[in-house]
Amino acid sequence: MAYPAFHTIKESNKTLARAGVLHTAHGDIETPAFVPVATQAAFKAASFRDAKETGTQIVMVNTYHLWVRDAADTVATFGGLHRFMKWDNPVMTDSGGFQVFSLGTGYGQEISKLMHTKPEEIKSHVRTKGLARIDNAGISFRSHLNGASMRLTPAVSIGVQEKLGADIIFALDECTSPVDSYDYTKESMQRTHRWAGESINARTRGDQLLFGIVQGGRWQDLREESARVIGSMEFDGFGIGGGFGKDDVTRLLEWSIPLLPREKARHYLGIGGVDDILASVKHGIDLFDCVIPTRLARHGILITAEEKVTIRQSKYKNDQNPAEKDCLCFACVNFSRAYLHHLFRAKEMLGGQLATIHNLAFYNRLMEGIRNDIKEGRM
Amino acid sequence: MAYPAFHTIKESNKTLARAGVLHTAHGDIETPAFVPVATQAAFKAASFRDAKETGTQIVMVNTYHLWVRDAADTVATFGGLHRFMKWDNPVMTDSGGFQVFSLGTGYGQEISKLMHTKPEEIKSHVRTKGLARIDNAGISFRSHLNGASMRLTPAVSIGVQEKLGADIIFALDECTSPVDSYDYTKESMQRTHRWAGESINARTRGDQLLFGIVQGGRWQDLREESARVIGSMEFDGFGIGGGFGKDDVTRLLEWSIPLLPREKARHYLGIGGVDDILASVKHGIDLFDCVIPTRLARHGILITAEEKVTIRQSKYKNDQNPAEKDCLCFACVNFSRAYLHHLFRAKEMLGGQLATIHNLAFYNRLMEGIRNDIKEGRM
Repeated sequence: MAYPAFHTIKESNKTLARAGVLHTAHGDIETPAFVPVATQAAFKAASFRDAKETGTQIVMVNTYHLWVRDAADTVATFGGLHRFMKWDNPVMTDSGGFQVFSLGTGYGQEISKLMHTKPEEIKSHVRTKGLARIDNAGISFRSHLNGASMRLTPAVSIGVQEKLGADIIFALDECTSPVDSYDYTKESMQRTHRWAGESINARTRGDQLLFGIVQGGRWQDLREESARVIGSMEFDGFGIGGGFGKDDVTRLLEWSIPLLPREKARHYLGIGGVDDILASVKHGIDLFDCVIPTRLARHGILITAEEKVTIRQSKYKNDQNPAEKDCLCFACVNFSRAYLHHLFRAKEMLGGQLATIHNLAFYNRLMEGIRNDIKEGRM
Repeated sequence: MAYPAFHTIKESNKTLARAGVLHTAHGDIETPAFVPVATQAAFKAASFRDAKETGTQIVMVNTYHLWVRDAADTVATFGGLHRFMKWDNPVMTDSGGFQVFSLGTGYGQEISKLMHTKPEEIKSHVRTKGLARIDNAGISFRSHLNGASMRLTPAVSIGVQEKLGADIIFALDECTSPVDSYDYTKESMQRTHRWAGESINARTRGDQLLFGIVQGGRWQDLREESARVIGSMEFDGFGIGGGFGKDDVTRLLEWSIPLLPREKARHYLGIGGVDDILASVKHGIDLFDCVIPTRLARHGILITAEEKVTIRQSKYKNDQNPAEKDCLCFACVNFSRAYLHHLFRAKEMLGGQLATIHNLAFYNRLMEGIRNDIKEGRM
């Protein structure tokens, strides 16, 4: 991009928090911002109109899912995701690497289970098991849909992301897990750095912001090295990858954020718990993507400032209150907890739709409050 | 109601078709009209806002489903369905009898299978098998949800429908199937007539239109007798029940409609194929309810004037056209067949939502065209 993609409006005095604006080819994003995930170019239970009405500024689409469905060429015939899925605000795509890791290498392994297992309890790493094999030039894997052999390299990832035409795209990285050894994590990080350079070299479009990803697992020296290397490359912004586990969420940031150039935006990949967002903003994060609000919604869990409302519970059967008091979203203005309770008990899809709308509205309001707190010096 | 509930605006010269207005406590309905089904007080894939934007004038909610879920009392605390499900246009509820028949007596039997079986091939009738037993005072059955013993009588049905508070409610009837014998159908019809009187006696509210139901199976004399008996009772309108099978759709009407009072509205229960609607309007039907447009939508079948589009087919993968050319619904104005194809292939709920919106728009436009044809003397 010809002009600086990011500029800071206000910085906190006591923390690294900052309010800013990220300029993209499809408009500006006020930061800190939350990026809800529309995995396959759709929010599962809600429409884009619903999402826009909640104040959603930007959505994340997962490159892997469109690519393995052979949908990227179709999207290209539409000139990109915006027209295909009818979303004229900014769009972000990831590199596809994480999904290859979780659906390929990690196939049959749940990240969340690994997180709660101590490293010494893991007998062997699954890196070369499952459906994927990683080498220094890329990842060979089989589609989780039909078993077809596929290969993801930095050039392939950028090529697909250019076809999809998002406003913000990511360099291919290898996301390590908390159970990986120091040696493996270092080797993997070096591969991520190599892929970062190859991703920059592969780009051909000038209208997309390319973000590089900082890795380095749970080791301070690796995180610092990765922040220095990635931070010195010609990226338009940065992602922080590998942020698994409650403890690590801010520790990773303490090590890496101060070493990244202040004039570029920072996105925390896959992080989106409310507490994690609040803590991470104070450590200098500008953007978050996460499936939490939409996934919880589909399971009937409504996020409010006071509590998480599990709407199927009998106590809501006759509750005439909205999901959240004073919330002005379409769901809260129109419907009661009793109706939402009925919809979830009766397995009506409309329940997931309304809950998704509320949770997105909650998240967007949370971020707006954070932005205002920063701007008005309350953080 | 103090004033005539229905008045005719224009009658066809050559057929029994008529354009009219049905007045209800929540506004007028221009007829002929289609009544989409929101079984459990929700359209499965679409919101009420979606439905309203397609021109939907009135929705049908199924009494049985709310009653067995013990939701009728909850609805009553909201003052009725309109506020519970946030639909301020007219609402219709059925008596619950058909669902008891199909989920109780006919449990495990598919009506559509029975339809294609010749009467002599049916060894014995299932009337007292399955989960329901019918006697002259009502129906004893077990809930399809939890097996609880329940009993539906005319007074119970009207009581529940008064709690639900719809604008148009139906007398309890017994819906016979095409495989029932003449003798059984006659006995059943007489029971339906008895229940019709008991339904009238049971009503306590003055703001609901009560429709009686004409039965009589596939026999002309029974249909004529039923039309005379039900037509002479103090109902605000009439339903035609038991219209299974392609042949019977208009034959039943030829026998019964001319014997019903012309100044009251006629609703064809459960009928909604496009051809059936066109034929039935010519035989004097004013209202139709049917799950066809919404059910087909959820299966990825888009109804258009030219064809039924099975959107999962490969030929739509790159089709940039809307579901239907010149359709102004939210789905057609915003999205392509290629995107709908992708959504259905990727099992995204948004596909069902957009297809439901289109099919409802198609049906409402169909009915508007029929009304205009009648008004302008083209039918």
